[in-house]
Amino acid sequence: MIVQNSFKKQVLTALLALSVLSAVAQQEKLVPYVNPMIGTYKMGHTYPGATVPFGMVQLSPDTDTIPYEAEGKYNPLVYKYCAGYQYDDKTIVGFSHTHFSGTGHSDLGDFLVMPTTGPLQLNPGTEEHPEKGYRSTFSHEEEHAEANYYRVKLTEPGIVAELTTSTRVGFHQYTFPKSDQAHIILDLMHGIYNYADKNVWTFVRVENDTLITGYRQTAGWARTRTVYFAMSFSKPFVQYGAKDFSKPDVYKGFWRKFDQEHNFPDLASEQLRMYFDFKTTEGEKIKIKFALSPVSTAGALANLKQEIPHWDFEKAKADGQQRWEQELQKIRVKAATRGDLVNFYTALYHTFLGPTVYNDGDGQYRGLDQNNHTAHGFTNYTTFSLWDTYRALHPFFNIIQPKRNDDMVKSMLAHYDQSVHKMLPVWSHYANENWCMIGYHSVSVICDAIIKGNFTGDVNRALDACVATARYRKFDGIGYYIDLGYVPEDKNSSSVSKTLEYAYDDWCIAQVAKKLNRQDVYAEFQKRSTNWRNVYDASTGYMRPKLSNGSFRKEFDVLSTHGQGYIEGNAWNYSLYVPHEPDQMIAGMGGKKRFVQHLDSLFTMHLPDEFFADTEDITREGIIGNYVHGNEPAHHAAYLYHWTDQPWKTQERTRMILKKQYQPTPDGLGGNDDCGQMSAWYIFTTLGFYPVAPASDQYIVGSPAIQSATLTLENGKTFAIEAKNQSDKNVYVQKLVLNGKTLNRLYLTHADITQGGQLTFFMGAKPVKK
Amino acid sequence: MIVQNSFKKQVLTALLALSVLSAVAQQEKLVPYVNPMIGTYKMGHTYPGATVPFGMVQLSPDTDTIPYEAEGKYNPLVYKYCAGYQYDDKTIVGFSHTHFSGTGHSDLGDFLVMPTTGPLQLNPGTEEHPEKGYRSTFSHEEEHAEANYYRVKLTEPGIVAELTTSTRVGFHQYTFPKSDQAHIILDLMHGIYNYADKNVWTFVRVENDTLITGYRQTAGWARTRTVYFAMSFSKPFVQYGAKDFSKPDVYKGFWRKFDQEHNFPDLASEQLRMYFDFKTTEGEKIKIKFALSPVSTAGALANLKQEIPHWDFEKAKADGQQRWEQELQKIRVKAATRGDLVNFYTALYHTFLGPTVYNDGDGQYRGLDQNNHTAHGFTNYTTFSLWDTYRALHPFFNIIQPKRNDDMVKSMLAHYDQSVHKMLPVWSHYANENWCMIGYHSVSVICDAIIKGNFTGDVNRALDACVATARYRKFDGIGYYIDLGYVPEDKNSSSVSKTLEYAYDDWCIAQVAKKLNRQDVYAEFQKRSTNWRNVYDASTGYMRPKLSNGSFRKEFDVLSTHGQGYIEGNAWNYSLYVPHEPDQMIAGMGGKKRFVQHLDSLFTMHLPDEFFADTEDITREGIIGNYVHGNEPAHHAAYLYHWTDQPWKTQERTRMILKKQYQPTPDGLGGNDDCGQMSAWYIFTTLGFYPVAPASDQYIVGSPAIQSATLTLENGKTFAIEAKNQSDKNVYVQKLVLNGKTLNRLYLTHADITQGGQLTFFMGAKPVKK
Repeated sequence: MIVQNSFKKQVLTALLALSVLSAVAQQEKLVPYVNPMIGTYKMGHTYPGATVPFGMVQLSPDTDTIPYEAEGKYNPLVYKYCAGYQYDDKTIVGFSHTHFSGTGHSDLGDFLVMPTTGPLQLNPGTEEHPEKGYRSTFSHEEEHAEANYYRVKLTEPGIVAELTTSTRVGFHQYTFPKSDQAHIILDLMHGIYNYADKNVWTFVRVENDTLITGYRQTAGWARTRTVYFAMSFSKPFVQYGAKDFSKPDVYKGFWRKFDQEHNFPDLASEQLRMYFDFKTTEGEKIKIKFALSPVSTAGALANLKQEIPHWDFEKAKADGQQRWEQELQKIRVKAATRGDLVNFYTALYHTFLGPTVYNDGDGQYRGLDQNNHTAHGFTNYTTFSLWDTYRALHPFFNIIQPKRNDDMVKSMLAHYDQSVHKMLPVWSHYANENWCMIGYHSVSVICDAIIKGNFTGDVNRALDACVATARYRKFDGIGYYIDLGYVPEDKNSSSVSKTLEYAYDDWCIAQVAKKLNRQDVYAEFQKRSTNWRNVYDASTGYMRPKLSNGSFRKEFDVLSTHGQGYIEGNAWNYSLYVPHEPDQMIAGMGGKKRFVQHLDSLFTMHLPDEFFADTEDITREGIIGNYVHGNEPAHHAAYLYHWTDQPWKTQERTRMILKKQYQPTPDGLGGNDDCGQMSAWYIFTTLGFYPVAPASDQYIVGSPAIQSATLTLENGKTFAIEAKNQSDKNVYVQKLVLNGKTLNRLYLTHADITQGGQLTFFMGAKPVKK
Repeated sequence: MIVQNSFKKQVLTALLALSVLSAVAQQEKLVPYVNPMIGTYKMGHTYPGATVPFGMVQLSPDTDTIPYEAEGKYNPLVYKYCAGYQYDDKTIVGFSHTHFSGTGHSDLGDFLVMPTTGPLQLNPGTEEHPEKGYRSTFSHEEEHAEANYYRVKLTEPGIVAELTTSTRVGFHQYTFPKSDQAHIILDLMHGIYNYADKNVWTFVRVENDTLITGYRQTAGWARTRTVYFAMSFSKPFVQYGAKDFSKPDVYKGFWRKFDQEHNFPDLASEQLRMYFDFKTTEGEKIKIKFALSPVSTAGALANLKQEIPHWDFEKAKADGQQRWEQELQKIRVKAATRGDLVNFYTALYHTFLGPTVYNDGDGQYRGLDQNNHTAHGFTNYTTFSLWDTYRALHPFFNIIQPKRNDDMVKSMLAHYDQSVHKMLPVWSHYANENWCMIGYHSVSVICDAIIKGNFTGDVNRALDACVATARYRKFDGIGYYIDLGYVPEDKNSSSVSKTLEYAYDDWCIAQVAKKLNRQDVYAEFQKRSTNWRNVYDASTGYMRPKLSNGSFRKEFDVLSTHGQGYIEGNAWNYSLYVPHEPDQMIAGMGGKKRFVQHLDSLFTMHLPDEFFADTEDITREGIIGNYVHGNEPAHHAAYLYHWTDQPWKTQERTRMILKKQYQPTPDGLGGNDDCGQMSAWYIFTTLGFYPVAPASDQYIVGSPAIQSATLTLENGKTFAIEAKNQSDKNVYVQKLVLNGKTLNRLYLTHADITQGGQLTFFMGAKPVKK
């Protein structure tokens, strides 16, 4: 692991400064265990800035930006700067209000604010020459991040920047030196991944000497995205101005009557940067409240007034941290080291970052049809990275956030209602479908919520939406899949991955259809759920790309992840992807014994470097043998030993993965956190069980990595987990006792948890091999 | 006058085919007297298509389009194609839904629809090579226009196109030949004056096989304009498709998964053209209802369902024509010739084309702040060409459309409320201020409505809005004007015009302040209203540009209209512009005798061709001597004789102008109709009186050019005008009798009209010179 000295020192200092508490004392605050810096280095793609649970605003520093001049080219920095921040960067460009957590593609970065002093500069400058722009150097010694709080000293202007938020409002506090040339820059051109200049239109009004409103419309990953804002200063600016960087082909007309660069309140163009000038005394604080809305500037202003009606930064910070505290308290754990607790509560923090609230205080939101809608009886959410999050994040929510998960399902159904395709979301954000990745995994999320009794809407309508989505022939080979029983690689690439994932999703539909006694739907989708068999090649023992003529493709590379019929995984990993019929899969692959050999080698083989080079989004550390934890398709793989004669290997492997893949350091995540999926895997696995097949009610037992945990459920019950004699060596489950009775199974049901009770793991250093 | 043989013949044929009726018989329909072709040739800039009174939709043929490839250049065709149609063009590109009537700058042209047959073509082609695109040749022999009805035979495809409308819905009816390759093109790139490609964004959904929704966002004359639509076909299309003509710098992302060119229902980009394919039988009619909304596609769809819930084209046409009939019946006239009646009712039609309704059926509209608002208790209007229309159009509405004018004032006040400048509209359309031309003439419109008792809102609030506007220092030299008492030419061009018009507007404010007993406001603006004196140069007898140092500019050209301190007028014309203090102006200019000589020469002098070449928007016929009727600053000039000893010259000159400037032919308008101002001048002058100074309650008497007229007022009263012995020769008023009593004045008060009654002009061939 490459760790730079500066932060290694910082981490060690932090750890030493605190006593090496290994458990959370009763009533102890949990927020201090959250370290938002985890994952901000390399491929974690988390952001260190301030936000509240599921907040619309993610107010965070951006350390670089992809210049919008880079037109028409696919810029590899799209990956590096998904979250706007990279720990090894030396400069901060400014603080913007929207960030994805842990994605592998990028967008957002709206409304960059930066305080400066001295001569006005209206361009960001470069990392090599920060003095040529408004950016500033900074050091990690003068940087500090907590849940809903971020602070950094901006070296050149000598300004301390502090950030906090409420759901829809970012709150900035800048402590200035004495200056007659103090500025606040508002960069409306800035964005994360400004592919070919994604700005479509910008509209700004300076309503008075403390209030700005406007919006920014972009065509990026979200094709038609508009974010509205209202920006309020704690102190009147003495003057302000704007510079229009648009190409000259925007009609300027009779607006030329005005000097639009100085104190002109009415601006609209493609590319704008603004500045607001102040005179400051030494140590003077200038504060900004910056509210967002998906609907209108009027909505943003109402959100601002409703959520933070005061100018007390400390109160806003405390209010937001109290909300974090309430969420984190839902699971109280005891663990061996403070590092384990930091890992745990930071993972919990990461699972509660999204999907994010996407309606105004009055319920209004922009729908997929680009009309404004009102969310009646639910909170509307956006940013559904479903290919990732159907696996463990939404199942985790079904335990710990059932109300929110219910609202998320309702948000997906609203998306469906507004979809001209009549499709549920695939990867959606900000009233847009971006069609990223594969599958129709909304189906899994919805069916899991129904099966587990958390969906409070019309279940038949929900099932209809799932069915319509699964039958939409235009999408990604579904037509072929319906006609042939598999996606043919010569017609649609990544065909094996698609076939396998469709088959699983189909099984989810069948489970709900069965529950609702919708026999025709059940029959259709039960049959479809066996389609994984159509791409299984018994001659090689792998799932293998098949052509439309019915034959397997001749060229077959089981290690490469590119162009081989798979996506973010290779034949090795994807051949294990039949979460709904593992027994049949194992039987088909030669039986349990042979399957264990296969699975063992996944974790132990040496993957040649050339194949690693092929793997996106993952550090070298994110790969264990040929098991790529940083990509999701094998997240269930270590649990597959459950269906063999050696279930204890699940216990061993999952503990090993936890150790290798999660560290309480900025580079502690081996791959993208993927909107909380990696963290949800961590939480489940640390607690000792995992939902291999969401939409079943079973969780497969692994090996708890804590001493104890108490889950406080929304139904008022608690589910307590104790891991007796657990240690780094004692990773093997000897006995399992639920509510005083020995469990003769290595899985829990959803009811086991939601009914409340006490689960005791008796742990030991040797596997129980019977 | 250059009249092409083809249409001269057509006009003569039309006139001969009808008996030379000189009067409108009792209960006779008036719609047949409207000829929408008037003004469609040369500089009239009217459109021939279908619309209802003040309708949101103006569905009309476009005969050419400015190619969007003409980037970054100021294209002179901006003037020629303001209304999309030029009578001498040989081809029709298609039928679009929004058109200005008679403007001198251009925008709109949204959503061009064109039916074709044969191989699909997705570009418009050129006039020289219509076969290379979807456009078609046509002839005026196979073209017919009525109020709310337009029909043309498209030669190449052999399709008869018919158009009609309701307020917010365009109704197309296309009669096809038998064809297996029948297409409807929907061109979302097309626009009137596509300066440098004004399309900002386009969004389209094919909701089902008969319904399309979407919007188009442009940055043209209106800087940030979005029009939403819902398009419904009477018959399902068999297939459809789209082509994206955007530059490659729009991020396409994972949308590449789809074939977006064929039957793909979810489109968004900068530049789109679509097609819908049909198979037609001989004579089969395909109908389209195309609804607009300023707010949303949901709004457009609701408008569609509400306004035209059926597919009966003839009924929609009849319903719209009935609405025209009701409006036209408000003035029933008898005149000498059918040509006079056609002129009169077409002028009346033109005055009722705008401002246009700008809210959905439920009252929602997009405001100047780009938020959605609901018009409570009024209809919201847009397209305020106020520099033109304050003069006669809105005063005319104060007589014949007081309710609508009240709503227009309320719309202006809503604009003010939403203005970040706190300014009333200058030239506004579609939730935007375009700042075209000079003055703050909303003030005149509002004050006139208040003085005449038509404004039903809060008068003090209205006055405050007028005052705030007049005090807005940033706008067009107002700061200098306040400080110096005039706009200095070295600081702000067209300074004389601005000073004069501001002074008049200020007088309007003073009148209302006096009425409301707001003494401080009265004193301030009464004083400001005399500022015209500051630019009067007694040494030359002209209003003359003054510099900021207080001296008149040395260079002084009294004939040129460019760079001389005036706009759309020269020193000759503008020196007469003190409508609120004509006596003082005349006294200042050397007294009545000298003034008459000056005024006489205006109409009789020979203007050298080089000065004509300088005059925008006007045909050579639009100029009488140095009097430029096609531009507005001298519209009151012929009435100024009223304040001299020779008022009969008003009677003579106005009749002469009527004859020369208004013909019942396509090229019958000598200049832009300017959103009805030219037509309102015609109506007033034809009825025999004119509002020289709106916001006074007086109308100056001219010479009625009809036999009689009956005005049916909204208050239930009628005002009847009779012109005894009137003829082309008997243009002089001998005696004026109001309600049986001889009038000893040559003006009417507003109350004279609104109280109802009978005004009798006794006309003769010789002026009454006492």
